[in-house]
Amino acid sequence: MDIVIIGSGNVAAVLGRKFKAAGHNIVQIYSRNASAATELAYEWDTESTNYKILINKNADVYIIAVSDDAIDDVIVDISLPGRVVAHTAASVPKEVLKKVTQHYGVFYPLQSLRKEMETLPDIPIFFDGIDALTKQKLEALAHSISAEKVVEGNDNDRLKLHVAAVMVSNFTNHLYALAEDYCRKEGLDFKQLLPLIEETAMRLKDTSAKQAQTGPALRHDSETIQKHLELLKEHPQLKNIYVLLTESIQQEK
Amino acid sequence: MDIVIIGSGNVAAVLGRKFKAAGHNIVQIYSRNASAATELAYEWDTESTNYKILINKNADVYIIAVSDDAIDDVIVDISLPGRVVAHTAASVPKEVLKKVTQHYGVFYPLQSLRKEMETLPDIPIFFDGIDALTKQKLEALAHSISAEKVVEGNDNDRLKLHVAAVMVSNFTNHLYALAEDYCRKEGLDFKQLLPLIEETAMRLKDTSAKQAQTGPALRHDSETIQKHLELLKEHPQLKNIYVLLTESIQQEK
Repeated sequence: MDIVIIGSGNVAAVLGRKFKAAGHNIVQIYSRNASAATELAYEWDTESTNYKILINKNADVYIIAVSDDAIDDVIVDISLPGRVVAHTAASVPKEVLKKVTQHYGVFYPLQSLRKEMETLPDIPIFFDGIDALTKQKLEALAHSISAEKVVEGNDNDRLKLHVAAVMVSNFTNHLYALAEDYCRKEGLDFKQLLPLIEETAMRLKDTSAKQAQTGPALRHDSETIQKHLELLKEHPQLKNIYVLLTESIQQEK
Repeated sequence: MDIVIIGSGNVAAVLGRKFKAAGHNIVQIYSRNASAATELAYEWDTESTNYKILINKNADVYIIAVSDDAIDDVIVDISLPGRVVAHTAASVPKEVLKKVTQHYGVFYPLQSLRKEMETLPDIPIFFDGIDALTKQKLEALAHSISAEKVVEGNDNDRLKLHVAAVMVSNFTNHLYALAEDYCRKEGLDFKQLLPLIEETAMRLKDTSAKQAQTGPALRHDSETIQKHLELLKEHPQLKNIYVLLTESIQQEK
């Protein structure tokens, strides 16, 4: 397909690479950030622009990959009647695009994407569209970059998934960051924890998280928990989280 | 080395497999759980016993791999003068073993171990010993099963590491479990989150957790946060955790 990418951030960069790798033609990249757009255009051997008026009108699909709160601004003065246009945001309804085209939809990558990634991860895609044509094009595009993990989902599904994604990615990463900081302050090497972190994540492929739960909270091992709380006296932020999550584990049955 | 394993749970089973794979000789397994001990003895082509009086007195190293609160009970009536004896518990001082032998120590695997594992994960080992002989034997044993990740650490180091391990493993797993439960209740497929979970864990190899942080909390995206809290009205346990961790992320600078 001929694709125009609107945006030049992490999602734009990684999706663009996936599209290129799948053999699509990125005919143009538009971004208000001219230097980021030029860089991606060079990488993809295509042209870039930072003028809305110069946006190519003849592509098959337009992917608007900008941050949630930038979508409204970006689409002002962009009109692409007859074209399929999708944004990539979890928590923004597809209807925000209805002034741009009659064929609007969503192309939501359920993954944490960063420009600096050296290898492109698996990216489950949740697509949605206002009509059959939009859905069909976005689904085909999704299948071309994500063989097995393509799901149709409406605005509400996407919002719910985003909550779950925040839990398992943003919040777990915050726990990693707190542990990293704790280790630095206590003179321990955080890297020693990586095999444990990896095992905890990877075992979900064949074990339910509930069944895999272990540790002093689950065992109601109050002696160990008290020792830990004693150590955390100097780390009040960590201590609060330790108490809440220990209680939450003990509430589970 | 000739090794006696005391215990027949997850840690005993996985360490024993690692020892066998490294070419050591497991001369015996003792456990109060005769059927579990028999099963492991069969797997390792060795003998098992559930009588303390029959414990082999001539091994090089004795590994006591039982749960923290069972150590005191297990060592009653076990005396192994001149032998190197270590327990595997993070939060138990090595001195609990001083009645068993003058060469006591600790052999702590910083990993989540389950009997059912098909492939044995990397296991960083933290060892400690009361004297040079004990340390030397335990360090050599550790190196034989964990090429790169062997560290000497005293009782206090181990306790601190355990706190960090609880954060990055027990607590993250609890977040996974809550998300799994949420997905089930909302009719979403939790498996769709696995690539995201994997990426979030694996990128720590080359990115600090703090730098990798993303999401609505970090962006102070209160519109999305409000939508999420609205969705979580029916999930009070999750909502509490969402609020606390969002605030905690926003406290970081």
